[in-house]
Amino acid sequence: MSLKKFMDVMLPAIEGELQRQVCRLDEAYTRPFYEMLTYHMGWTGEGAGSEATGKRIRPLMLLLTVVACEEEWLHAVPAAAAVELVHNFSLVHDDIQDNSAKRRGRMTVWKIWGMPMAINVGDALFVLSNQAIMDLRENYPAETVVKAATILHNTCLDLTRGQFLDMSYEERKDLDVKDYWPMIAGKTAALLSACCHIGSILGGADESKQDAYRSFGHALGMAFQVQDDILGIWGDEAITGKSIASDLLEGKKSLPVLHGLSKHGSFAERWRKGPVQQSEVEEMSQLLATEGSYEYTHGVSRQMTTLALDSLREADAQGEAGEALMELASKLIKREQ
Amino acid sequence: MSLKKFMDVMLPAIEGELQRQVCRLDEAYTRPFYEMLTYHMGWTGEGAGSEATGKRIRPLMLLLTVVACEEEWLHAVPAAAAVELVHNFSLVHDDIQDNSAKRRGRMTVWKIWGMPMAINVGDALFVLSNQAIMDLRENYPAETVVKAATILHNTCLDLTRGQFLDMSYEERKDLDVKDYWPMIAGKTAALLSACCHIGSILGGADESKQDAYRSFGHALGMAFQVQDDILGIWGDEAITGKSIASDLLEGKKSLPVLHGLSKHGSFAERWRKGPVQQSEVEEMSQLLATEGSYEYTHGVSRQMTTLALDSLREADAQGEAGEALMELASKLIKREQ
Repeated sequence: MSLKKFMDVMLPAIEGELQRQVCRLDEAYTRPFYEMLTYHMGWTGEGAGSEATGKRIRPLMLLLTVVACEEEWLHAVPAAAAVELVHNFSLVHDDIQDNSAKRRGRMTVWKIWGMPMAINVGDALFVLSNQAIMDLRENYPAETVVKAATILHNTCLDLTRGQFLDMSYEERKDLDVKDYWPMIAGKTAALLSACCHIGSILGGADESKQDAYRSFGHALGMAFQVQDDILGIWGDEAITGKSIASDLLEGKKSLPVLHGLSKHGSFAERWRKGPVQQSEVEEMSQLLATEGSYEYTHGVSRQMTTLALDSLREADAQGEAGEALMELASKLIKREQ
Repeated sequence: MSLKKFMDVMLPAIEGELQRQVCRLDEAYTRPFYEMLTYHMGWTGEGAGSEATGKRIRPLMLLLTVVACEEEWLHAVPAAAAVELVHNFSLVHDDIQDNSAKRRGRMTVWKIWGMPMAINVGDALFVLSNQAIMDLRENYPAETVVKAATILHNTCLDLTRGQFLDMSYEERKDLDVKDYWPMIAGKTAALLSACCHIGSILGGADESKQDAYRSFGHALGMAFQVQDDILGIWGDEAITGKSIASDLLEGKKSLPVLHGLSKHGSFAERWRKGPVQQSEVEEMSQLLATEGSYEYTHGVSRQMTTLALDSLREADAQGEAGEALMELASKLIKREQ
């Protein structure tokens, strides 16, 4: 209930700030470039609208953290825009790297304007995220701006690390469960962790609370990714919008698959022979469950979720915003409270 | 003479700082990723060495500006590394976008490790530039760090603007001389301008001197690019290492070509029919000269050079560093004093 109340005021503010940032490219000479960015952000072009923008989970998380630290969220909106722009920069480059033609049901930027232009669109979104975080200087002391920007930059390096691992795993045959963690730490957990960390700094939290918020974001990111991996193999199509087990067809090195490979059983034997075919998907997902990977992954998901909620309690998130953070976290890991 | 003296002490400091920044990726998990960056930076792999690193003109320019403002340059080295990292990020992405197989006589990153990895290498260099500029916090007040970072980010947005224009011009048939300026302002002049601007801020210059240094860098960048365009068509192979008129073969929308097109003469007529062949190059470059483009472009180059030198005088660059800046500028625009 309280989450919706916050979303009603925060989401328009986030969207407005994102538009203000992207507007830097709205000049006569660069109009078509600007329009590539507004298309990707979900504001223009075919299929524009709330389905196309994504849920803006990361900026919401940042602003809710500020309020849960009992500070004014409006001042922090440029930081919220910054994390969302980082997320979107990584999506544009990811789609090129993965050769993905669709994103949120729409054609990807590179599919419409070609790879060279799409690289530049991603680069521009990245630059805009840097400019957005610097805009905090209007509302905070320069020391705070430098602190927030440093966290954001460290996070972006983690993103490139995770991206490197993800790509390098495609060709590796010797992967194990232990290889999973550094990859998703970079690809998924780092940015959610940064949202909560930056939010707590802008909320004026002390170091120990900052640590608790950072851990909350990190564990939440991990829990979310593990949950996503489960849904990608045994998942509920109604929730994910993806056909069951699409991760097996795509050969994705998700946690259940890495666990299965480490068992060196029938699943691993079949997997190493080459791409899984549609006709084998059901058998393979059952095989994986029989070999203990379903149980293992669910256990990990529960552990991470517990860790996240413990950290949030430790952070002592205050009032309705604290409840809203809990609600958002629960939504993200698709478990009802 | 004095330039060499500065180079002898500054270049090793710049290289050391660059290595310190790139080392952030030197971890067991990301070693191959780290090695892609050290290869591109010219430190490792086939052909590594001073030929492969490039001349580090931009960081030199930044540090010389600091000294010409009568401040300690050692403190500014992280900013010098930042501008060089921005330059290199843009080169890695540029090579993908241009489909270039070679850079400084060596295979490009994408040619060796593939396009997806190369996008990520460029992204990482970009992140490292952000981290480097933030490292100024060790030596300067946070307000100064925020100022320097803001200039760098604005410059990066200019780079993406210039890159967009460059790519969009490939397919345009209606280009004119006026379309040239915003493109090279972004692609070439913005970063040189930022070097001098940031250098003057770290040098503690007042606003009017900062403006003069910024104008110096901007005009120098323009003069350099125009000079490069001249050499690309009528150029001295001994200086450029490129075969004469290679820009005509590549169909590059350089200033002489845009001037020629605006004349609607025989050059324009032939150009619009399709790619220039090797056998036509000499005739086409002569035609372009006959139609006044050689004279025009030389005039512009002289104008820009005068503007640059006037700005440098206005900046009142001090002592040996001031002389060294003048010497570096002269080297860059390949004219002897």
